[in-house]
Amino acid sequence: MSRQAPAAGTAAAGGALTLEAVAGVELAAATVGLKASGRPDLVLVRLAESSRTSALFTRNAFCAAPVQVARAHLAVSAPRVLLINSGCANAGTGVAGLDDARATCARAGTACQVPGEAVLPFSTGVIGERLGARVPLERLLEQIDRCAGALAPGADAWHAAADAILTTDTYAKGCSVRAALPGGEVTVTGIAKGSGMIRPDMATMLAFVATDADVEQPMLDELLRDATDASFHRITVDGDTSTNDAVTLSATGASGVRVRTPADRDGLRDALVQVFVELAQSIVRDAEGATRFVEIAVDGGRDEAECRSVAFTVAHSPLVKTALFGGDPNWGRILAAVGRAPVDRLDVDRIDIALGELQLVASGQPVPGYDETRAAAIVTQPEIVIHIGLGRGTAGTRVWTSDLSYDYVRINADYRT
Amino acid sequence: MSRQAPAAGTAAAGGALTLEAVAGVELAAATVGLKASGRPDLVLVRLAESSRTSALFTRNAFCAAPVQVARAHLAVSAPRVLLINSGCANAGTGVAGLDDARATCARAGTACQVPGEAVLPFSTGVIGERLGARVPLERLLEQIDRCAGALAPGADAWHAAADAILTTDTYAKGCSVRAALPGGEVTVTGIAKGSGMIRPDMATMLAFVATDADVEQPMLDELLRDATDASFHRITVDGDTSTNDAVTLSATGASGVRVRTPADRDGLRDALVQVFVELAQSIVRDAEGATRFVEIAVDGGRDEAECRSVAFTVAHSPLVKTALFGGDPNWGRILAAVGRAPVDRLDVDRIDIALGELQLVASGQPVPGYDETRAAAIVTQPEIVIHIGLGRGTAGTRVWTSDLSYDYVRINADYRT
Repeated sequence: MSRQAPAAGTAAAGGALTLEAVAGVELAAATVGLKASGRPDLVLVRLAESSRTSALFTRNAFCAAPVQVARAHLAVSAPRVLLINSGCANAGTGVAGLDDARATCARAGTACQVPGEAVLPFSTGVIGERLGARVPLERLLEQIDRCAGALAPGADAWHAAADAILTTDTYAKGCSVRAALPGGEVTVTGIAKGSGMIRPDMATMLAFVATDADVEQPMLDELLRDATDASFHRITVDGDTSTNDAVTLSATGASGVRVRTPADRDGLRDALVQVFVELAQSIVRDAEGATRFVEIAVDGGRDEAECRSVAFTVAHSPLVKTALFGGDPNWGRILAAVGRAPVDRLDVDRIDIALGELQLVASGQPVPGYDETRAAAIVTQPEIVIHIGLGRGTAGTRVWTSDLSYDYVRINADYRT
Repeated sequence: MSRQAPAAGTAAAGGALTLEAVAGVELAAATVGLKASGRPDLVLVRLAESSRTSALFTRNAFCAAPVQVARAHLAVSAPRVLLINSGCANAGTGVAGLDDARATCARAGTACQVPGEAVLPFSTGVIGERLGARVPLERLLEQIDRCAGALAPGADAWHAAADAILTTDTYAKGCSVRAALPGGEVTVTGIAKGSGMIRPDMATMLAFVATDADVEQPMLDELLRDATDASFHRITVDGDTSTNDAVTLSATGASGVRVRTPADRDGLRDALVQVFVELAQSIVRDAEGATRFVEIAVDGGRDEAECRSVAFTVAHSPLVKTALFGGDPNWGRILAAVGRAPVDRLDVDRIDIALGELQLVASGQPVPGYDETRAAAIVTQPEIVIHIGLGRGTAGTRVWTSDLSYDYVRINADYRT
């Protein structure tokens, strides 16, 4: 497989986004007034008739009204329209919130000449307020009509959509990859929003990825699970957390490239993983108040699950995260976090810890005379890798997180004020 | 049972501590130089010959050298001496750290004319440095001798000990209760240190409680478990977290009051719970950077375990904690945290949430027109109670936590610098 490099700019802070159009996908954005900032806050995505879509949602018991409606619609209809609003999560809003979500789907269906059940709604923003309490619902419905009349297939429409789904994000997130599969070339483009993923309960993460490949539903479902597992599930944004988290993968088939063989499937999976990982990492890089991007690489485990358990325990430790913010190579806190990970019979005498290439702990004990000045230099970099060896197997994993800063507290203490 | 009110002042910030002596307990404090501040950092406690002691330790796989030594000593000998240092946790220090801990026990044993195995060592402070790397070990051993020569039974010695075990605490923590049991009056006095328990991995918590009651070992073990479960295990300072956490309960028997009957046992348990809860809450009140003391009361659960699971999920949520710091009655974040608690088949349509006496969520939905101004007034108080009703049973629990502030980040980002 001769897969190309990313066709487009990645979501580095401040960098301009360059996304590729996906045949069979049209988009439009509008401004309803759901955001206090007055920036665009509504996106309509129309998928070609042959399209298939797979979706994963939050596992939070309090899933938002749009998540409930989207799940119900997926069960009865192939999605043709994605309807996304930012500024209002429509979560914790009871029957009235469900009514609002259904009303927007019905309107989008009418406007796009598909059944209301073929529309999947997504919302992100403040929890506890229904759409119709934030703005007059009719104003939202009118903007849906307006979007339907403005749908466009080009890169500009993708860029507008990437902007309009943001909330407290500081930049738009997206990625495109062209992949030369044995069966032909396909394009994968995705956009995402996530306003701070230091912890898995940290507001909504949404991602919408589309390809012009022709993929049947079971394979599409499998590809979405695989790509999500390699990406969003490694930034602690896993499904059991926020009220609104959702990831969708749509395959329009408009390229005419049929993905049926293992070689085509693996090639598409590689391209999807590349896009998903880029989106996931860009969310961590934009985490609320983050000053450092941290990869936690665990190896030597008996299986991937225990490696992930150790990695997330370290990634969630506020003591580790504040030390990273302070530029303090405090391996003692890393060690203490590893020690409380829910892993059976961890042998402390086999644990290794390294910061970048500098080993700090070997076989459970500090390396005598390790260079603390060098460790401090490593830990004040904007990108840090923490290696943790468990010394009891051959499995490994990587997760991505950020530090915990004053600004994290400021942003979340002041969010509604 | 006519139990008296607390015999002594509690550990409210800034309030002077007034502790009662416990017959059969002598204490002394000294300054070794383990703390950068130069404040007292060593405590020796000698227990009368008839004493029994029960202890609970951290469940962290990386338990510190003193914890390993204390466990080994408890297995072979009745404790007669507690040796506590602050400023250096002697954790993650390998064989050298064990050697240091054993050397201090041997010296304390010699000085107090008991076997070294009758000495239990406790350390708190910076992780990753052995005692002998922080100061010349001989200086520490000399101060042990000096303490042994200065042991005193009075309240002043308790106060000195309460001060000397502190690290980043902002005030000393202690509590005394006199209880009139059917079999006679006994005294319970405890001291504790904990420098920030916003999360369970938050440095060391130590507590040392003594009574002059005569209690046999099995009952003492049971009383320690019960009192710890009602107190320290509700501030998320449970044993599976830090490298050095320890709680001890010593019964000297010097009052001559034999606790053998259920009535005596229950009376003593009440007194112990009162002291333990006071110590636990005083740790939360002094949590690093805390500006609010928060009780999370969960009821309507099927069993206490699921109530505790919900309560801790809310108590650990940085989104809830930063909202509390910001004085924002953001029930949406509380709801989202409840929703991701690991509880089987939580029915969101039965959840109630109240701030103090003000109900915000009823049957899973926001109470229409609830008074947000009043909610904001409640949540800016220094003491807040969050009530969560699960609506599926009769079990309940309470846990105590704090908010997450700028100062939390500052203290933990700068700890070693």
